[in-house]
Amino acid sequence: MDANILFNTLIFHTFITKKTMNRITLIIQLLLIINFSFSQNNDEKVIRDIFDNVLLNDEAYNNLEYLCTEAPGRLIGSDESIIAVNFMKDYFKKLGADSVFLQEFITPAWKCNSTEVSILIDGKEIQLRADALGPSPSTQGKGLFTNVIEVQGLDELKALDKEEVQGKIVFYNRPVDMRIVSTFRVYSSAIDQRYYGPKVAAEMGASGVLVRSVGTRIDTFPHTGSTGFKEIKIPCAAISTVDANILSKALKDNKALKVKMVIDAEDMEEITTYNLIADLRGNEFPDEFIVVGGHIDSWFNSPGAHDDGIGCVQSADVMRIFKELGIENKRTIRVILFMDEELFQSGGSAYANYTHANEIKNYLALEADAGGFTPEGFTVDASDSVVGIISGYQSLLEPYGIHYIKKGGSGVDIGPLKQFGVPLMGYRTDSQRYMDLHHSAYDTFDKVHIRELQLGSGNMAAIIFLVDKYGL
Amino acid sequence: MDANILFNTLIFHTFITKKTMNRITLIIQLLLIINFSFSQNNDEKVIRDIFDNVLLNDEAYNNLEYLCTEAPGRLIGSDESIIAVNFMKDYFKKLGADSVFLQEFITPAWKCNSTEVSILIDGKEIQLRADALGPSPSTQGKGLFTNVIEVQGLDELKALDKEEVQGKIVFYNRPVDMRIVSTFRVYSSAIDQRYYGPKVAAEMGASGVLVRSVGTRIDTFPHTGSTGFKEIKIPCAAISTVDANILSKALKDNKALKVKMVIDAEDMEEITTYNLIADLRGNEFPDEFIVVGGHIDSWFNSPGAHDDGIGCVQSADVMRIFKELGIENKRTIRVILFMDEELFQSGGSAYANYTHANEIKNYLALEADAGGFTPEGFTVDASDSVVGIISGYQSLLEPYGIHYIKKGGSGVDIGPLKQFGVPLMGYRTDSQRYMDLHHSAYDTFDKVHIRELQLGSGNMAAIIFLVDKYGL
Repeated sequence: MDANILFNTLIFHTFITKKTMNRITLIIQLLLIINFSFSQNNDEKVIRDIFDNVLLNDEAYNNLEYLCTEAPGRLIGSDESIIAVNFMKDYFKKLGADSVFLQEFITPAWKCNSTEVSILIDGKEIQLRADALGPSPSTQGKGLFTNVIEVQGLDELKALDKEEVQGKIVFYNRPVDMRIVSTFRVYSSAIDQRYYGPKVAAEMGASGVLVRSVGTRIDTFPHTGSTGFKEIKIPCAAISTVDANILSKALKDNKALKVKMVIDAEDMEEITTYNLIADLRGNEFPDEFIVVGGHIDSWFNSPGAHDDGIGCVQSADVMRIFKELGIENKRTIRVILFMDEELFQSGGSAYANYTHANEIKNYLALEADAGGFTPEGFTVDASDSVVGIISGYQSLLEPYGIHYIKKGGSGVDIGPLKQFGVPLMGYRTDSQRYMDLHHSAYDTFDKVHIRELQLGSGNMAAIIFLVDKYGL
Repeated sequence: MDANILFNTLIFHTFITKKTMNRITLIIQLLLIINFSFSQNNDEKVIRDIFDNVLLNDEAYNNLEYLCTEAPGRLIGSDESIIAVNFMKDYFKKLGADSVFLQEFITPAWKCNSTEVSILIDGKEIQLRADALGPSPSTQGKGLFTNVIEVQGLDELKALDKEEVQGKIVFYNRPVDMRIVSTFRVYSSAIDQRYYGPKVAAEMGASGVLVRSVGTRIDTFPHTGSTGFKEIKIPCAAISTVDANILSKALKDNKALKVKMVIDAEDMEEITTYNLIADLRGNEFPDEFIVVGGHIDSWFNSPGAHDDGIGCVQSADVMRIFKELGIENKRTIRVILFMDEELFQSGGSAYANYTHANEIKNYLALEADAGGFTPEGFTVDASDSVVGIISGYQSLLEPYGIHYIKKGGSGVDIGPLKQFGVPLMGYRTDSQRYMDLHHSAYDTFDKVHIRELQLGSGNMAAIIFLVDKYGL
């Protein structure tokens, strides 16, 4: 019942005295209060039903196991990325989605075949565990074999003379700042070295770059990631934190130490790839799309459990929950498993361009790409009034671990929708363990806890239920 | 500066006109605002210093590794429990505690040497993974070999005729309710079977009891725990959830199936044991004690990482933080590592009795015994006014993950202080993984994340700093 319409109808289309009108107003106010209480109780019940369902269901968890074990390293352009898309496409069909389709697009890609980094200590070759950054070029000939210059950041490098840097491998070794509570901010404390480091080093004439892995553990896993080249591209790789310490010590012992670096990588000028889209048609406004998604690609070195297989299977789980519980959605719920969040962020742009060109209305978009640990909250990138409406639902989700709904960022894949005024949301989870595994081979299925995953699916389904029911 | 005293002094001990008084009132109000802002900024800085320290410190983590690997299975009466106490005693001395002592007490204890449970399927003996409940008696002679009666709970058993139960092994097999969000409440959904089950079965003439492990995974780890016998004691054990399913299926196939059960356990009438107490003397009210602690004992089958080695090392870390940062404490901070939370809860009573007999004033007590995962909040078991004061500090701790400070329970060890009116608090963490490992061999050191541990120490230190500074 839309109370405003009823009210307006009664007031303006009926002949009534003022006294009668006052009485009607009073009755309507009472009705509204009753209706509101009923709605809230009813919402609580639907949300409780969602969690009763999800906390006993292991489909999303099993789907994630498949993605991590049968399609690890599913970088854009890889066979694994297509295996993953096809597997999830079949799952959406099994769920009974009203439509499932591949949104095709053509884009450059890149591939890493191998990364080898080693040093000679006392005549003995020591391998340093390394993975190329994307899109590093291959080394030429037999690879690099040259001196190393260690710096603690971009400023330290920029302060050097170009001659000092010329032909050398620049080794960025500033550790993350572990004193910060959110590990996303810990990550930010050193990410400049990985993202801008190769560009700056190339401009200064360096022949290659090694970057200390941006992670929260001292271990042997290299954490790769994207780097922002401009014109000049030079071979670059992340080495594990343990190996960064080994290299730094070796350089202290011997400033003339040379590093051998061999990267075998390929640029692919044009490939055809896909975002996977599955719709659950709305019964009132089927042309308004509530998008929920994660990204199906992962780095070549990683099973991509938390980043971001889990966001994909949780988004699919939202559809399963609506189907199994028979929750009616006014608007179309559109689950999107985006391709290429990691390397060139092409999938998000491709979807935004596609919907803009076809005048498709994205009503709201929610991305799950911040790990799949215990729920913490939602952030909303929208007008204050939309933030106000959505944050009003926090108390309904508090019993399920949502400690906040507040203004904040959303996700890389849905980001391009912002230019068209689409309200965006991000699902947030406890970050403490996330940067241990991000972009590395350590991001395995066993790091995911089934209940933490389920609580995520449940909260995502619940917030979409509320936004769809009450509108923005 | 105590503002009330200053205000009273000015108002009542000075000859002043009303106009002058109004001016003075205004000045004092301004001073109070400035003072408050200064205090708050200062508190924020101290708390930030605490986290800057703790997030770079691994002493507590290393202490926990020692407890789990050198003193696993440290049940009261065991050698391991004394190894653990001595190790931590040395640590407190190293920290420079003002006093470190063993609070001795004499109490009964119990020991489990072995638990064997098996069934015959098609003539083949299948071992069921089991651990005796505490304090199960030993089986007599060659052990039990008898029929089994499976029930889904106490009511189902009580509804049976005694003849049906007589001489049999009762098998409580109701699973936990996984639909509940907090796993402490998941645990509560089935714990009656373990705690009351053996007593009720004994009263009905059963010869033994098997209980489905009260945990949140289907796995092969038995979760033991205490059981509440009255007069009659019968052998009883927990079997893993996987084995409970095996047994249940075997019983469906063959109702005449017999279980073999051999428990070798010993009651110890009187042992001498200790709570370990370390004090950091207060500089203003040294005779008022702010207690912070966990329990040093663990079940015989468990390394006791989350339950509750972590609570012990975090409590010790509070003292380390105060010492290293030179934070001045008005009241004495008393770290207590309680013995015997698990079996007979004798350590908590012994401490309460000791302080009551010696008229020692416990000003407040905080227990960390709810796992060492990412911080969630504090619960306060005290008067509304004390709850109000302490919950006022939540906003200062919000940046460090404290989502709530609210009325609620505290801990088993400090519980006996309640009768003397001591305000009690419990430190709460994310519960999702806790009941996977509680009271089992799965509760190993590697399940603990160093940053989650550190954030706990930091928040405990911060709340004690605030309570000590501003009083209750």
